Amino acid sequence: MHMSSTKPFRVAVAGASGYAGGELLRLAARHPRLEVGTLTAHSNAGATLGSVHPHLRSLAHRLLEPTTPEALAGHDVVVLALPHGASAEIAAQLPDDVLVLDLGADHRLVSPDAWERFYGSAHAGTWPYGLPELLHGDGAGSVTGRQRDLLAGASRIAVPGCNVTAVTLGLQPGVAAGVVEPTDVVAVLANGYSGAGRALKPHLLASEGLGAAAPYAVGGTHRHVPEIQQNLGVAGGGDATISFTPTLVPMSRGILATVTARLAPGVAPDEVRPAWETAYADEPFVHLLPEGQWPSTAMTLGANAALVQVVVDAAAGRVVTVTAIDNLVKGTAGGAIQSMNLALGLDETTGLPTEGVAP
Amino acid sequence: MHMSSTKPFRVAVAGASGYAGGELLRLAARHPRLEVGTLTAHSNAGATLGSVHPHLRSLAHRLLEPTTPEALAGHDVVVLALPHGASAEIAAQLPDDVLVLDLGADHRLVSPDAWERFYGSAHAGTWPYGLPELLHGDGAGSVTGRQRDLLAGASRIAVPGCNVTAVTLGLQPGVAAGVVEPTDVVAVLANGYSGAGRALKPHLLASEGLGAAAPYAVGGTHRHVPEIQQNLGVAGGGDATISFTPTLVPMSRGILATVTARLAPGVAPDEVRPAWETAYADEPFVHLLPEGQWPSTAMTLGANAALVQVVVDAAAGRVVTVTAIDNLVKGTAGGAIQSMNLALGLDETTGLPTEGVAP
Amino acid sequence: MHMSSTKPFRVAVAGASGYAGGELLRLAARHPRLEVGTLTAHSNAGATLGSVHPHLRSLAHRLLEPTTPEALAGHDVVVLALPHGASAEIAAQLPDDVLVLDLGADHRLVSPDAWERFYGSAHAGTWPYGLPELLHGDGAGSVTGRQRDLLAGASRIAVPGCNVTAVTLGLQPGVAAGVVEPTDVVAVLANGYSGAGRALKPHLLASEGLGAAAPYAVGGTHRHVPEIQQNLGVAGGGDATISFTPTLVPMSRGILATVTARLAPGVAPDEVRPAWETAYADEPFVHLLPEGQWPSTAMTLGANAALVQVVVDAAAGRVVTVTAIDNLVKGTAGGAIQSMNLALGLDETTGLPTEGVAP
Amino acid sequence: MHMSSTKPFRVAVAGASGYAGGELLRLAARHPRLEVGTLTAHSNAGATLGSVHPHLRSLAHRLLEPTTPEALAGHDVVVLALPHGASAEIAAQLPDDVLVLDLGADHRLVSPDAWERFYGSAHAGTWPYGLPELLHGDGAGSVTGRQRDLLAGASRIAVPGCNVTAVTLGLQPGVAAGVVEPTDVVAVLANGYSGAGRALKPHLLASEGLGAAAPYAVGGTHRHVPEIQQNLGVAGGGDATISFTPTLVPMSRGILATVTARLAPGVAPDEVRPAWETAYADEPFVHLLPEGQWPSTAMTLGANAALVQVVVDAAAGRVVTVTAIDNLVKGTAGGAIQSMNLALGLDETTGLPTEGVAP
Repeated sequence: MHMSSTKPFRVAVAGASGYAGGELLRLAARHPRLEVGTLTAHSNAGATLGSVHPHLRSLAHRLLEPTTPEALAGHDVVVLALPHGASAEIAAQLPDDVLVLDLGADHRLVSPDAWERFYGSAHAGTWPYGLPELLHGDGAGSVTGRQRDLLAGASRIAVPGCNVTAVTLGLQPGVAAGVVEPTDVVAVLANGYSGAGRALKPHLLASEGLGAAAPYAVGGTHRHVPEIQQNLGVAGGGDATISFTPTLVPMSRGILATVTARLAPGVAPDEVRPAWETAYADEPFVHLLPEGQWPSTAMTLGANAALVQVVVDAAAGRVVTVTAIDNLVKGTAGGAIQSMNLALGLDETTGLPTEGVAP
Repeated sequence: MHMSSTKPFRVAVAGASGYAGGELLRLAARHPRLEVGTLTAHSNAGATLGSVHPHLRSLAHRLLEPTTPEALAGHDVVVLALPHGASAEIAAQLPDDVLVLDLGADHRLVSPDAWERFYGSAHAGTWPYGLPELLHGDGAGSVTGRQRDLLAGASRIAVPGCNVTAVTLGLQPGVAAGVVEPTDVVAVLANGYSGAGRALKPHLLASEGLGAAAPYAVGGTHRHVPEIQQNLGVAGGGDATISFTPTLVPMSRGILATVTARLAPGVAPDEVRPAWETAYADEPFVHLLPEGQWPSTAMTLGANAALVQVVVDAAAGRVVTVTAIDNLVKGTAGGAIQSMNLALGLDETTGLPTEGVAP
Repeated sequence: MHMSSTKPFRVAVAGASGYAGGELLRLAARHPRLEVGTLTAHSNAGATLGSVHPHLRSLAHRLLEPTTPEALAGHDVVVLALPHGASAEIAAQLPDDVLVLDLGADHRLVSPDAWERFYGSAHAGTWPYGLPELLHGDGAGSVTGRQRDLLAGASRIAVPGCNVTAVTLGLQPGVAAGVVEPTDVVAVLANGYSGAGRALKPHLLASEGLGAAAPYAVGGTHRHVPEIQQNLGVAGGGDATISFTPTLVPMSRGILATVTARLAPGVAPDEVRPAWETAYADEPFVHLLPEGQWPSTAMTLGANAALVQVVVDAAAGRVVTVTAIDNLVKGTAGGAIQSMNLALGLDETTGLPTEGVAP
Repeated sequence: MHMSSTKPFRVAVAGASGYAGGELLRLAARHPRLEVGTLTAHSNAGATLGSVHPHLRSLAHRLLEPTTPEALAGHDVVVLALPHGASAEIAAQLPDDVLVLDLGADHRLVSPDAWERFYGSAHAGTWPYGLPELLHGDGAGSVTGRQRDLLAGASRIAVPGCNVTAVTLGLQPGVAAGVVEPTDVVAVLANGYSGAGRALKPHLLASEGLGAAAPYAVGGTHRHVPEIQQNLGVAGGGDATISFTPTLVPMSRGILATVTARLAPGVAPDEVRPAWETAYADEPFVHLLPEGQWPSTAMTLGANAALVQVVVDAAAGRVVTVTAIDNLVKGTAGGAIQSMNLALGLDETTGLPTEGVAP
C-alpha cells in the first residue's frame, strides 16, 4: 500500500490524552518514518498536549481537537486509543485505504458470543490480530505459522490487550509444542497502575496504592480471559481454559505474568525449554533469558520487549513461566507500532527501542 | 506453668537487631503482660537498640548483648529470631521450663527427609507448630480440631513461615471440607521486601526494587513448599502438591497470596463459601471479607490480621482465594505472640492489634 | 470536667469516612478510656465502616450516619474531621460542655485577616490551639510556658495542620532561644499522599505519583503558611516569615520537613543544639535524635512521635533541622488525642503508641 | 578532530557495570553516530553485560573486561564511569587525542583547596566542565557566554554531578541576571535511589527505603556543595553560598530540586521570570514550563531534559525555583553525550531523547 515511499507516513491519534495515546506519541515522535498529524481528545479537546502529557516536550504545543471523522481524515495511519465501544463507531467512518489500529478491545475477539458475554454489547466484527509473534499450531506439536504473516498489508489491526500479550507470550511455546496442557492454565499477574488508565476511582489513588498489593476482577470475570483463550487456542489448535487473576502492585508500569500449566503426559522435563528456545530464537522483541535469570518488569520499562523464563516443577507436575513487559509499550503502543510497521511494509523493528530504562 | 501470676512475664529476644526481632519488640513493648528483658545480637552486639531500630522509642537506650545461653537465662520466655540453623543450637542449651519460640525454620517440619532436601542439614527435631488456626481434618470433610489446642502449656513452639501462614489460611478451609482438591494447588504471592530480611544483596536494593516486580525461588525450590504441604496435609488428611511462586513487589511489608485449587468433583459452587465461613466464624484474627470485597495488604499493615476472600471460577474449574497479611505481624512476630499467649495461659488476643495502619 | 470518672468517655466522629477520621478511630479503638460512639459521613452515610475502612476490623460493622447535631448528641467528646468551613457550622450547634476537637482549619488562626486572605471566607473565631509542645517565648531567649498548660479542661480545641506541626516542632526551640532568626525561614517538605485526603484528582492517582516527586502550592500560597508564622511568633515573641514548599513523594504517609533558618548574629555554633535538648528533654512524643542520626518518616509510621535532628552549617550561616512525623498521627489524629487527654484530665500519653511500624 | 567522518565513533566505557555506565550504554546503543566498543568493569570483569544490565538487550552478549589502558586503547571516545579517584589515574594513561569524559568528580573543581577539603585527596587538575547550558555572567546582570562554547573540540570533559546540574539549571538565570542574591541560597532535593549507585549499604535497601523519606549529608558536608558554588560563581561573577540538603525518597530515578534565593534589593517581582525566559528560550534540553505548571520528576524519566519553574514569594522575599531531571540522563549520561556531541562536532542533540517515559 504505502510501501515504497520515502516521505513520512502521517499518523493521527484519536484519544491522545490518555496513557495509551501518550505512549503511542512518545514512540511516534522518535520513529524515523512517522510524522505526527492530528491529535484528538474528548474532555481535553482544546487543550495543548503539553498540559496533559508534559513529558512529551517536542509535541507540547500541539492542540487537541475533538474526535471526529473529519479531524482524522487525510492521514496514512489512524490510531484509536478510545474506550471500548467508541472505537468501533469511529472506525466505521474511516476510509478503507487508511491503516487503522484499534488499541481498544472492539475488534479483538472472533467469537461474538464471547464478546457479548464479557463486554455486554453487540459485536463489532473481528480485525486481524496485532500480535506478530502469535504462534499458529496444528494441535499436534508443530507450528504452522506466525501471526505476522497475516499483518503485511493489512488496513485494520486489533491491538491485543496488555495482559493478554504477557500471558500469551509466556505460555504459547509450550502449548504449540504440546509439552503443556492448555486446559487448567493458571495465571496470576502483578500489574502497574497505568494499566488502569486515567480514570478517577478511589482504589486508584496513590494514597491507597502505595504500600499495597490487591487483586481485581477475580474469578474469571476479567475481559482479557476470552482473548487469552482465543490465543492459546490458535497456538494449540484446541480449547484452553485459564484461571486468571490480576493484582495491582505499587508501580506505575509493567506486567509480571506468572503462568503455569500442567506438564503434558509423557513429556520429559528436558523437552520443555527447547520449545521456548525454538519459538523465540529469531524474535526481535521476545527474549528467553538464560537459564537461572528471571525477568523483572524494571528490565522492560519503556522498551518494546518481552522477557520470558520457563522452568519445570516436576514435583508439582507443572511448567512455570514468568514474563515481564511494559504494559504501555509491548503491551499496547509499542506492539501497535510493531504491527503498523508490518502493515506499512517497513522493517518490523523500525523506531522501537529494545533497551529498557533501568534501574 | 506461668499461668496464674500477675507479675509480668520477662521475655528475651535473641536476634533483636533483625526485622523479625524488631517487630516482636514493637508488639512486646505494648503487651500488657510482658516485660522486655535481655536483647541480643550478633554483629550489632554492643550497640543500642535505638541505633538499629530507631522507631522503637521506648527501648532506644537498651543495649544489645552477644547471643549466649547465659545472656538468655532468667527469663520466662525466649524468642529466637536467628538464622536457620542457629536457633536449634542455642535452643538446645535453654532450660526445659522456659517457653522458647523459634521464629526460624529449624523445628517446623515433621519430615526429616523434607528438612534435609530443602535445608541441606541435619534435622533438629519438631516442635509444636505455632499456627493456632490450623485445621485438623479427618480427610472426609470434617474438622476434628485446631492447632491451638496443642499449644496450651507448650514450652517449645515453632513459629510458621510467613508465606506458609498466608497460603495455609487462604486455602485450608476448602481442603478440610473436601470442596477443593489438595493436589495441583497453585499459589503466586506478592511479597514485600522486609520478608527478605536485612541481608545486603544487590537485588534487594531500593534502586532495583522500586518500579519492579520480579519472582524468586521459582519452580518448587522455595523452602516454604514442604511446610505448606505439611499444613495442607494436616487440614486435609492426605497428600498435597503445590506450585509456589513468590514475587517481590515494591512495598516494604505485606503478603498477598493468590491461591487456587481445583473444585473437587461433584461439589456445587455454592458449597464452597460456607466452608470458609464455618472455619473462620470464631477466629479473632482471620477474617473472611464480605462477598465482593477483596483483601489488600494495606488493610493489614501492623495488624495481627489475615483477610481472606474466596470465589469459584466455574469456567476454569477452580476455587480462587486471596489472603493478605503483614508478613512481620501475623506472618511472624504477631503470630508468635498469639501462640505465646496460648502457651502462657493468657487470652489469645492479649496485646495484639487487629487494626491496620492505613492508608 | 470529666476528670475523675472511670467509665469510658464516649467519642463521636463526624467525617469518619476520611483518612483523618479513620486514623482517629484506629487510635480510639485501642485507647483504654474511650468508647467509640456515633460515626457520621456525608456521601458514605448508610454504609458500614468496614466498606470504607476495611483495616478497622473491630469497627467494621458500624454504620455511618448523616452528619447532624442530633446524631452527635450525647457524647463526651466530638471530633470533627470535616472539610474546612463545614466544621465551624456544625460546631456552632454543639453544647458548650462537650469537648469538641476540630481537625480542620476553621478555628486555628488568631488573625481574621490571615484567615480571610488564605481561606477566602469569614473567620469563625479562634479555639485553644492543640499543639501541647508549642513553646511560648518572651522574645528574649526564654521559654515562659508551653501550650499544654492552656489545654487542661478546654472544651474546644483546634488541632494543628500536619505540615505546621512538623515545621513548628523542628524549628521552635531555636526561635524561642533566640539562636536563629525567625525571619527568612525556608522549609521544604516531602509529603505522603494521604495528606491530600481522599479527593479524586488526577495528580493524586497512583499512576501519576509512583516514581514521581512534584511540588504543589509553591510560592507562599499554601494555607499552612500563616499558621506556621503564628506558631513561630508565639515561640519567638515576634514576627516570622517563611518560604514554604511542600512536595509530594511516593509514600502514603509521612512528612519530612527540612527547615533552615539563619544563625542569629553573635551565636556560636555550639550554642545551638542545647536549645533543642532543653526544649524536648521531657517531651514524651518529640525526640531529638542522638547526634549524627537523622530522622526518616519510616521511623514514625503509625506512631505519635516527632523525630528531630539539628545541625549548624557554619559556611552557609544557617541552622538546618529535619523533622519526621506521621501526618495522620502526630500530624492529625494522634495529636488530637494527645490534646484530648489533656482536656479530659487523663495522662497525656494515654492510648498513644510511640513505636513506629518499621521497616 | 573527528569532525567530518561519517563512520561511527567508537566509544569505550570504563565502569560499564554501574548505573552511570549502563545508562551511557542505553543511550549509546541508539545514538546514530556511535559504535559501542570495549566495556570494562572491576568485580564484574569476565561477566556478560546481560548479567549485570539485563535491560540492555542489544548488548547482552558483550563481555566485560578488566579496566586497563590497553583495553581502552583504539577508541575515539572513552567514558570513565569510575569511583572518585580511580578516573584520574586511568585518564592520565590515555592518549591526548582521544576524547575522554569523566563521569566522576576528579576533574570538576577549579579550586584545589575546595577539592582537598571535600574529597580529602590531592587535586588531579581541572578539565573543561561539561554543562553546555552553564551561563557565564559578568556580575552586572549580563550573560557573556555559555559553557558550550568551551566544549567544541575539547578532548577532556568533566561531566557535572547530578545534583549540581539540577540546582545550577534551576537558579543560574536569576543569578546571572542579578535578580536574586547568590548568597544565602537554600536548596532541598528529593532524590531517587539510583543516585547512590549500586553500593550495598543498609539504608539503601528497598525494605528501608519504601515508604520513607530521609535526608543525608546534611549541614554543608555533601561533595556537590563546592561544585554548585563554583557554577553559581561563574553565572554571577561573584561568590555564592548555599545550604544544601538532599533527601532520599522512594523512587529509583529523578531529582526534584527546590531552590530558593533572596530577591535582590530593588528588583520588582515581574522582573524575575523574564530572566529565566531569556536564559532558556533557545536551549534544546532545558524547558521553562508555562506559568502555573510545576515540574515532576516523572516528566523527565529517561529523557535528556530539565524542566524548570520559577515564582516569586513576595511575602517571604524569596524567589522559588523547582527543577526536575533524571539524575542518570540529564544528570549524568545524557549530559555526557550532549557534551560529547559538542566536542565531536556533531549536532548537540544527536541521539538524545527529550520525551520522558510517563506515567
